[in-house]
Amino acid sequence: MAPHPPDTPATEPDTLAAAAPWAHGAAYVRPLDLRGRIDLTHGAGGRATHQLVSELFLPAFAPAGAPPSGSGRHASPPGEDAAVLGADCSPPAGHRLVLSTDAHVVSPLCFPGGDIGRLGVHGSVNDLAMMGAQPLCLSVSFILEEGLPLADLQQVARSMGEAAREAGVRIATGDTKVVERGKADRLYLSVSALGHVAPGVTLSATQARPGDAILLSGRVGEHGLAVLSQRQGLQFDAPIASDTAALHRLVAAMLASGARLRLLRDPTRGGVATALNEIAASSGVGMVLEEAAVPLQPAVSAACELLGLDALYLANEGKLLAICAPDDADALLATMRAHPLGQDAARIGTVVADPHGFVQARTALGGVRLLDWLSGDPLPRIC
Amino acid sequence: MAPHPPDTPATEPDTLAAAAPWAHGAAYVRPLDLRGRIDLTHGAGGRATHQLVSELFLPAFAPAGAPPSGSGRHASPPGEDAAVLGADCSPPAGHRLVLSTDAHVVSPLCFPGGDIGRLGVHGSVNDLAMMGAQPLCLSVSFILEEGLPLADLQQVARSMGEAAREAGVRIATGDTKVVERGKADRLYLSVSALGHVAPGVTLSATQARPGDAILLSGRVGEHGLAVLSQRQGLQFDAPIASDTAALHRLVAAMLASGARLRLLRDPTRGGVATALNEIAASSGVGMVLEEAAVPLQPAVSAACELLGLDALYLANEGKLLAICAPDDADALLATMRAHPLGQDAARIGTVVADPHGFVQARTALGGVRLLDWLSGDPLPRIC
Repeated sequence: MAPHPPDTPATEPDTLAAAAPWAHGAAYVRPLDLRGRIDLTHGAGGRATHQLVSELFLPAFAPAGAPPSGSGRHASPPGEDAAVLGADCSPPAGHRLVLSTDAHVVSPLCFPGGDIGRLGVHGSVNDLAMMGAQPLCLSVSFILEEGLPLADLQQVARSMGEAAREAGVRIATGDTKVVERGKADRLYLSVSALGHVAPGVTLSATQARPGDAILLSGRVGEHGLAVLSQRQGLQFDAPIASDTAALHRLVAAMLASGARLRLLRDPTRGGVATALNEIAASSGVGMVLEEAAVPLQPAVSAACELLGLDALYLANEGKLLAICAPDDADALLATMRAHPLGQDAARIGTVVADPHGFVQARTALGGVRLLDWLSGDPLPRIC
Repeated sequence: MAPHPPDTPATEPDTLAAAAPWAHGAAYVRPLDLRGRIDLTHGAGGRATHQLVSELFLPAFAPAGAPPSGSGRHASPPGEDAAVLGADCSPPAGHRLVLSTDAHVVSPLCFPGGDIGRLGVHGSVNDLAMMGAQPLCLSVSFILEEGLPLADLQQVARSMGEAAREAGVRIATGDTKVVERGKADRLYLSVSALGHVAPGVTLSATQARPGDAILLSGRVGEHGLAVLSQRQGLQFDAPIASDTAALHRLVAAMLASGARLRLLRDPTRGGVATALNEIAASSGVGMVLEEAAVPLQPAVSAACELLGLDALYLANEGKLLAICAPDDADALLATMRAHPLGQDAARIGTVVADPHGFVQARTALGGVRLLDWLSGDPLPRIC
């Protein structure tokens, strides 16, 4: 084997070379230079693509306990077209499979509290969790713009690996394409998640009934404002960070509580107001919200006032709405508050009979305002 | 209900209104105007997003036998975050799950023989098939550029639905994001596929052994040239159409033949030459190809000569390479030729012992040339 470049430690390239399939060939291939940038060859399916997978993605995505290299212990080694899932990625007997997918185009890529990589993992895991499901594994698909610094891509990939390990879910397979400069905005990401749901768990947006309680797991608007502040260079008195988090463990605790849970929904794009309108329409009911009961960080409240934004329409990435039978609301709220991601949970309203499907908010001053669906897009590319 | 606009038939809006969740509300929402264009509101998660899903995607994706509307029979109605898979999308007992994902950025979106929608379905189904798996369902993720004509999006969605119905696979769930004009090139698509593989089927790129036969299922280079001709406005004497096709039924027949199959690989980006180099590297073997044995349409051969392209490096989207035990090659070839997608199948070479992992081609004139990995990217955005 050819000598290593002098500025890299002797051990790491050895590991990588052993993992890189072309290391079997005669030519010695230089390790990926992370000071470089993405070019079209990284998406062409040849050596550069494989080097990107073996030297950047696989080490970043390595499951907990595995060596940080593409040594074949990963579910989908670079030489295969798809991941055959092992026993650790298979559902328990009797459970149904659940599939979700989320595209991410957030701009900028990094913001206080997270980046597109964490968001991608959390978004897909949460989509599963809202059906009462636990995640088994993820697939990831990158669309990269020519010229993207490799170091930025590595940071995103490492965030994804970290978020996946925290969530206890494996990144099983992936794909990468590259488009010419100016044909994308640095990096777009799609993440699909495969999960499983226990027999008898049948959450659905169609199941809200008049009288049901509406619970919210915590303070709203933080993700939307964190991205907006980063994008516009705004500085608030108190820093506002994204709430991005994986909610499946909170959901597992809520399901285990035995409460008669009708449905869950994560209020992402369009915020709490839009999510409630979707549920109201799907269930053919109305809703009345107590605006003062909605948990809100003072800094978010102040920023919304300053910028003329309504926190009820701002995106969240680590919160959920739960609708349950009224008699079970207190116990379910106690369960939520006992979990770190639900400690600020509150009962924020009630489902009512309303053939028009209106969502109304009782304001702190005693008035009533209609919370319509989000129209227009005040904050594009928020996730 | 408000009267229908006079220029639309009375029946279709009825169906769509019944399917559209906001139809429960008081406000009458105009049906999607397909003469319009994508704007940022279609990705904001509000009414416009839901209208796009209910009126454009769900009718296009409807499974065979279902009414062409989002009437809730679809696995993932617009009101839910993820698809809980029914018995028709669950693996047989004892089968392992297989997950694949493919991003598609092909330019232009439509080309002779297909479009990005057909390609997206076939690409992911074929990734599963190369592991010996049959598909259960798909998830789709769209990244749309502001200004994309809705009619173009509908055409792509209809192609996807058609390709999925032909392949017998259901589009179970999806997501859509919109980016500003100039931040994407019309439309990017990611498709993930979930499938299942029978016990005992363990195809892997690591399993080629010296002496094994290398089979190819048909004529190469057609997809690459079809996209190139459309992009550059080239006209060939005989029209060249993409070979895009779903290969899982051909694979099922090959597996059922009982041949000792080591591995399958679809020679997409980078073509036959790059796919063989990947296999050679993964298995630690060399390969010798008989160039004259590679099936080639005369029009492709002529176009390659004219343009200075090597057909062995051109992308294919409906072909597979199979490596099998030498004694089984004739029987396997007969099985392949009996299938419409394998009628031009040929034995094109042999696996040899070679510590360097070289892939060599014996030319028609009796010489030998080295087929290296694809380097550079002669045809970017081919899939």
